[in-house]
Amino acid sequence: MTGPEPGSGPIGGSGAGSDTGAPEQSSDTSRLETFSDGVLAIAITLLILEVRVPPDVPGRDLGRAVLHQWPSYAGYAVSFLTIGVIWVNHHHMFKLIARTNHPFLMINVVFLMAIAFLPWPTTLVADYIRDPDGRRVAAVVYGLTMVAVAVMFCVVWFYASWRGRLLNGELDREALNRTYRSYLLGPVVYGSAVVIALFAPLVSLAIYAALAVYWLLPGTGPRA
Amino acid sequence: MTGPEPGSGPIGGSGAGSDTGAPEQSSDTSRLETFSDGVLAIAITLLILEVRVPPDVPGRDLGRAVLHQWPSYAGYAVSFLTIGVIWVNHHHMFKLIARTNHPFLMINVVFLMAIAFLPWPTTLVADYIRDPDGRRVAAVVYGLTMVAVAVMFCVVWFYASWRGRLLNGELDREALNRTYRSYLLGPVVYGSAVVIALFAPLVSLAIYAALAVYWLLPGTGPRA
Amino acid sequence: MTGPEPGSGPIGGSGAGSDTGAPEQSSDTSRLETFSDGVLAIAITLLILEVRVPPDVPGRDLGRAVLHQWPSYAGYAVSFLTIGVIWVNHHHMFKLIARTNHPFLMINVVFLMAIAFLPWPTTLVADYIRDPDGRRVAAVVYGLTMVAVAVMFCVVWFYASWRGRLLNGELDREALNRTYRSYLLGPVVYGSAVVIALFAPLVSLAIYAALAVYWLLPGTGPRA
Amino acid sequence: MTGPEPGSGPIGGSGAGSDTGAPEQSSDTSRLETFSDGVLAIAITLLILEVRVPPDVPGRDLGRAVLHQWPSYAGYAVSFLTIGVIWVNHHHMFKLIARTNHPFLMINVVFLMAIAFLPWPTTLVADYIRDPDGRRVAAVVYGLTMVAVAVMFCVVWFYASWRGRLLNGELDREALNRTYRSYLLGPVVYGSAVVIALFAPLVSLAIYAALAVYWLLPGTGPRA
Repeated sequence: MTGPEPGSGPIGGSGAGSDTGAPEQSSDTSRLETFSDGVLAIAITLLILEVRVPPDVPGRDLGRAVLHQWPSYAGYAVSFLTIGVIWVNHHHMFKLIARTNHPFLMINVVFLMAIAFLPWPTTLVADYIRDPDGRRVAAVVYGLTMVAVAVMFCVVWFYASWRGRLLNGELDREALNRTYRSYLLGPVVYGSAVVIALFAPLVSLAIYAALAVYWLLPGTGPRA
Repeated sequence: MTGPEPGSGPIGGSGAGSDTGAPEQSSDTSRLETFSDGVLAIAITLLILEVRVPPDVPGRDLGRAVLHQWPSYAGYAVSFLTIGVIWVNHHHMFKLIARTNHPFLMINVVFLMAIAFLPWPTTLVADYIRDPDGRRVAAVVYGLTMVAVAVMFCVVWFYASWRGRLLNGELDREALNRTYRSYLLGPVVYGSAVVIALFAPLVSLAIYAALAVYWLLPGTGPRA
Repeated sequence: MTGPEPGSGPIGGSGAGSDTGAPEQSSDTSRLETFSDGVLAIAITLLILEVRVPPDVPGRDLGRAVLHQWPSYAGYAVSFLTIGVIWVNHHHMFKLIARTNHPFLMINVVFLMAIAFLPWPTTLVADYIRDPDGRRVAAVVYGLTMVAVAVMFCVVWFYASWRGRLLNGELDREALNRTYRSYLLGPVVYGSAVVIALFAPLVSLAIYAALAVYWLLPGTGPRA
Repeated sequence: MTGPEPGSGPIGGSGAGSDTGAPEQSSDTSRLETFSDGVLAIAITLLILEVRVPPDVPGRDLGRAVLHQWPSYAGYAVSFLTIGVIWVNHHHMFKLIARTNHPFLMINVVFLMAIAFLPWPTTLVADYIRDPDGRRVAAVVYGLTMVAVAVMFCVVWFYASWRGRLLNGELDREALNRTYRSYLLGPVVYGSAVVIALFAPLVSLAIYAALAVYWLLPGTGPRA
């Protein structure tokens, strides 16, 4: 909307990283978390709009028509759990982040842009899973969206944790490295599933579903 | 999205249940409540999208067409009140819960997945209530969704209250047992309504409506 | 979902109105305000979904088609401002309310149910404003929805303020009476507009628009 | 909904600007920020509803059909980033604003009304970008919406900062003037793009996209 802004210049001159600005900065993180939660909550709830009511089916065939739509319910469940897991992880990540700055807010907006896109490939998969050619395209598109989400998740973390830029206190260097490596798994796993989708779309769809369920299980995520 | 996470390992090592982590943990509960409220607020407001405007009716017949749609308004009201009551109860439950952990967040995501599904069976019922065969299917689907919601509500509470895992201070054991029993009523009542729906779908729809109104009344819910 | 609840019985026995429960109670108000704001924010933003893009119009006629849709934009603006004004007033009302209890939460749910319905009559008016018979029906339905909103707004306030039940400290009795009277104007004004709609629907639609703009103006609302 | 309100008169007599009312006033700002964030989060997430799934395309043509829809994805990205940038700027502006009053809440409602409209011109552009006449109309409508947003953004800031009315402490007069000038760029830039759209709609669409990306880049926004 506008170029420079009240925060810039002498007025709001508590630059990112200044220690004195701490309370202001943490209020920043809280508004960023609220906004992110809002977008995630809306994207997750909009998924139901993609499940359609069978139109004008004779009553006696409704049961079959409802069952026939199983890919819609499966897509709803997989994408819901996936976004839910991302919310939990985003949430844990932000326990370690104490400050924000302008580029970090913008990186988060791009991250949210990738996630809020997910309802669309979800419908694409549900609508074309029965067509052998169609489901190849749909599985690739779904996977590419997840790659974008996983890459942006890494970017958010790398930006915040690079030299402890926005982090909360001193952190164990070794633990940070382990976290880096575990986050990098996301793009690798989803990237592989995209390649698999070219040859065996149903296998890659099964991988997306398995990942959502796997991360849901106790012991696979953070402990606190 | 990601496997292990910054919260795990030496970095965020304030395990659930450690007393020192209290402030951090209560901020967890607050973000969980905010996210849940967001999903509930969106699911409840999306219900209006299922009420359609009669398309291209001649003006002189519009009044009749609007009245003819009464199942849509009834479905809107029943599901709105039902989600509203669930919100109030979720809200009261969380007054007693002081901490979260990773599995608890995931259980809540599954609970929200059941509730956010409700707009779909609501439309199904409104669209097929006039067809004797159709409404049987619709009433069963609506009831099964409510059974899933009621079961997950119990699971949320059982997980949190088991040996006081995530609860706030010491609680009266006898009172906890009474609460358990009252929560278990939900799956039983909705499960019975599903069985009734197989024989008398209109009766079971009346039960769903009656339950929403009943819990709305003073004296049927918590006192604080 | 559930009958009695952990809040009831010996566990959460800080009854409404007990002074010792103050902090807990005020946290209640805050979650109620957040939920209400969420529903209002969603209902206000969903209004845009009712403005449709002209489908498959030849490019050279698009300008005319876009202008032809003016009732959709007008409906969007009037309902947006109306919900906005209600948000502001709800917001001011809650500055005076310090506590909640179970019936009060339920009354608020019913109030939100009336408001969240508004996108539907808004579309009805926009779609049928050009048909002399259709707009009568649409204007009546829109007005009845607003009567329901206005009545529920009064009920919320009456319940909270009756003998100061949920209010914040001692209030000037004379001022409370003036507030009662001013709130009661809402149902009267919208009720009159419904009657007018039976004879002159365009006049009543103009009244709805004028009310939204009037309350927007400085000096017509609360001062703080 | 209602005329005068509990806040007016002797009851809630802490007029805007009174120093004693500080805590109450700052709670006001927080609820205004939450509501604005809610509307922005919903408007940004609803954008995905405008991206449609190609209906009933034979599977072997789905890849092409998905690529053919590129204007929808581009529109999604441009409007998402635009609203994201506005959110960041709104957010920074409110760090300087300490109080609200009735007209200020209303001005914000009108500002939100402009932003929440954006999904509609976004779809209009995506649907008509291939038609030379259609895209002229669409580019003008999109630009006019952005002019409205930019003007209202200025109005919000001018109202709050006029003689420091609602601002937080003393501010550097020179810095305020610089901020005024930078905000005024918004309406000028988007206004020029509307004029350009009359002759070269594709150029003006490129300008909208470039602006969204430009403000995303580091160094173009506020520093804190």
